[in-house]
Amino acid sequence: MEEIKIGLLGFGNVGTGVYKILEENRNDILHREGLKLKVEKILVRDVHKRRKMIIDSSLFTDNIKDIIDNPEISIVAEFMGGIDPAKEYILAALEKKKTVVTANKEVMARYWSELEKAAQKNGVGLYYEASVAGGIPIIKVMGESLQANKVYELMGIINGTTNYILTKMSEEGRSFEDVLSEAQRLGYAEPDPTADIEGFDATYKLSILSSIAFHARVPIEYIYREGITKITAEDIAYGKELGYVIRLLAIAKKQGFSIETRVHPTFIPMSHPLAAVRDSYNAIFIRGDAVGSMMLYGRGAGDLPTGSAVVSDIITACHQSEKHRYTTFYNEAQVSEEVNFIKNWETEFFIRLTVKDKPGVLAKIAGIFGKHEVSIASMIQKNHNEDSVPLIFVTHHAKELSMKKAIDDIKCQQDVIRVENVIRVEN
Amino acid sequence: MEEIKIGLLGFGNVGTGVYKILEENRNDILHREGLKLKVEKILVRDVHKRRKMIIDSSLFTDNIKDIIDNPEISIVAEFMGGIDPAKEYILAALEKKKTVVTANKEVMARYWSELEKAAQKNGVGLYYEASVAGGIPIIKVMGESLQANKVYELMGIINGTTNYILTKMSEEGRSFEDVLSEAQRLGYAEPDPTADIEGFDATYKLSILSSIAFHARVPIEYIYREGITKITAEDIAYGKELGYVIRLLAIAKKQGFSIETRVHPTFIPMSHPLAAVRDSYNAIFIRGDAVGSMMLYGRGAGDLPTGSAVVSDIITACHQSEKHRYTTFYNEAQVSEEVNFIKNWETEFFIRLTVKDKPGVLAKIAGIFGKHEVSIASMIQKNHNEDSVPLIFVTHHAKELSMKKAIDDIKCQQDVIRVENVIRVEN
Repeated sequence: MEEIKIGLLGFGNVGTGVYKILEENRNDILHREGLKLKVEKILVRDVHKRRKMIIDSSLFTDNIKDIIDNPEISIVAEFMGGIDPAKEYILAALEKKKTVVTANKEVMARYWSELEKAAQKNGVGLYYEASVAGGIPIIKVMGESLQANKVYELMGIINGTTNYILTKMSEEGRSFEDVLSEAQRLGYAEPDPTADIEGFDATYKLSILSSIAFHARVPIEYIYREGITKITAEDIAYGKELGYVIRLLAIAKKQGFSIETRVHPTFIPMSHPLAAVRDSYNAIFIRGDAVGSMMLYGRGAGDLPTGSAVVSDIITACHQSEKHRYTTFYNEAQVSEEVNFIKNWETEFFIRLTVKDKPGVLAKIAGIFGKHEVSIASMIQKNHNEDSVPLIFVTHHAKELSMKKAIDDIKCQQDVIRVENVIRVEN
Repeated sequence: MEEIKIGLLGFGNVGTGVYKILEENRNDILHREGLKLKVEKILVRDVHKRRKMIIDSSLFTDNIKDIIDNPEISIVAEFMGGIDPAKEYILAALEKKKTVVTANKEVMARYWSELEKAAQKNGVGLYYEASVAGGIPIIKVMGESLQANKVYELMGIINGTTNYILTKMSEEGRSFEDVLSEAQRLGYAEPDPTADIEGFDATYKLSILSSIAFHARVPIEYIYREGITKITAEDIAYGKELGYVIRLLAIAKKQGFSIETRVHPTFIPMSHPLAAVRDSYNAIFIRGDAVGSMMLYGRGAGDLPTGSAVVSDIITACHQSEKHRYTTFYNEAQVSEEVNFIKNWETEFFIRLTVKDKPGVLAKIAGIFGKHEVSIASMIQKNHNEDSVPLIFVTHHAKELSMKKAIDDIKCQQDVIRVENVIRVEN
């Protein structure tokens, strides 16, 4: 049996996980899959760095050429993260006719076409299961198990950090700032948490997922993005009273030729399968015309879960060697449909106001909603025996732009002290 | 492009769904997958029967030979259900070098080896994604996305009827008999519901799932089976008080070379992902050494969800034609490990007793548990101001056989009026 030689780019969290899995499950992979996989070289910044894992130091190199120019290495697995130099290395590997397995969501979301074309031109594979939702095989499931479906909706919890923060806020009634700094202390959130809490990370992943789901390229520029920094314990408490749980959702819907894609904090009913996804877990909820509602749930990050996806891609690549390609189902040339990206989507809204405790205020606000064709589904008004009172509305389906206009009008009302928050609601 | 001709065996619920999907998604399958699929013949009992769907009557035949002996048909899809004559037809198709796609859990669970061998001998494929959990692609995920894992635990809600019944009982406080007869009226349960409510259906499916998960054949004879008929509204109410939800779980665990497989009503914590699986939905929860905890959720039955799995298998079969085989990962010859099936597994237990309201009863019972090395984790005793009182225990991990002996001893106590129920608890 021929040994398949692999080059790893990066040896951080995921790289270590991949190495561990290949070592520990060597026999299983040999017996079950008939494959002899060997890590030949590992690209690191510092070959002399002390590492937790005991590993033959001759495997390390700080020179990319030792991998790219080694004709014995047929598969390159990349988990350096970021664009530069990961993208350049991936392209170089493809040009040298090496199959690439990557966990890099940002590179895939931004340079997908370019990389796919390079892979195609060189007759090699490009695999990226690990780029979205860690160990959850959502990319393979959409590509190879839902072929008989028109997928028309996808809602994902695809950022573990924000889900951890929102879970803690919801279950312990704590503030965003409080939970974030705890999460940073525990290493669950980055020192600079922007990519997570402002929804950038989820946007990259949604670009990849929705492109596959809808068989049409969804560039990140077309994805509406809103982070979780403005969510308060009060919003969550009132939502709970109305039967809702808050999650940062990555949402993609397709109707006819219209696609809407958005990442924002969202209230969902407590009975929704996504409401049970707690802590740093990820899940992707899909609706297809044949399969109905479906959900995949699991670990969205971590050395071994993400490593599981990388190694699965490596094994798949080995078995598909005759075909040399993976994502034949996604190919720009095949996108015959013209799609348009809409911004004026319809959804339900949760609106929390602080108003003066005076007669007629409610009627005035209700009138403004009516004027903009926003109809109210439920309401909470609490008497605080103070000058100001909270007023909470949940609307029926309404247009995004109508809601914006209604809120602008409401803000101008003399008796409205503050528009505290507007949070979208999905079912 | 060559047309791929398909013969359907059966045109009930699933057969109609498959036909519908192939018709409605014809263009998508052509463009995305590059496949021209055509239903050539459909085997039915009565070719003259009036059907809801408008369909060319020349497609129907009541003679299996019109399919088996037609050399143009390369794929046969079976959804007749039951053993006889489905098994014979599947074998005949394989012998005629036709790839078979089946939704038949019973045939697969009972005659897997025989069918696999026939497929292998004839160099054709045998696909059965639709045999377990309808539209949920659990078989492909285990075989083609978790290759880097040692799966050591699997817990599934794989029977929609019982999950519907238990959900209604839990959420509406109703009795088993009451909900069952309603379910029968609504067509959610069969006129003879035995296969579902006594757990036979789940047993077939667990045999298939655990065999794939553990890469070792798990015959149905080795699966412990207990139905839901003895679950009462009281059990459910007390479980709720302790933070549990009841589900009929199909459980498979592997530790070293020991495998335990069992189907029985089970209490799980309300925070467990399986606790959120309501009504007739199915879900499979998996633990693997690399991927960690994972769950797949979706429609476990129905014309289109099951049809989605069948059509996905057909498409996979077409793409894998060079390989001619699908389940190479399951092959008796490759099972090098010796496994043993254990019956004396460890789990937690919920025990509900009715005892006389006399001093010393609790001490006596606690003493019996202690004697059999069963330790108590929590307890509810309620004073009903009557001669008899309910007494509820939840134990720590205990051996199945120790618990049996403890219960036998408790039954003999003078002050114990009844052992109302013993329900296993998983976390």
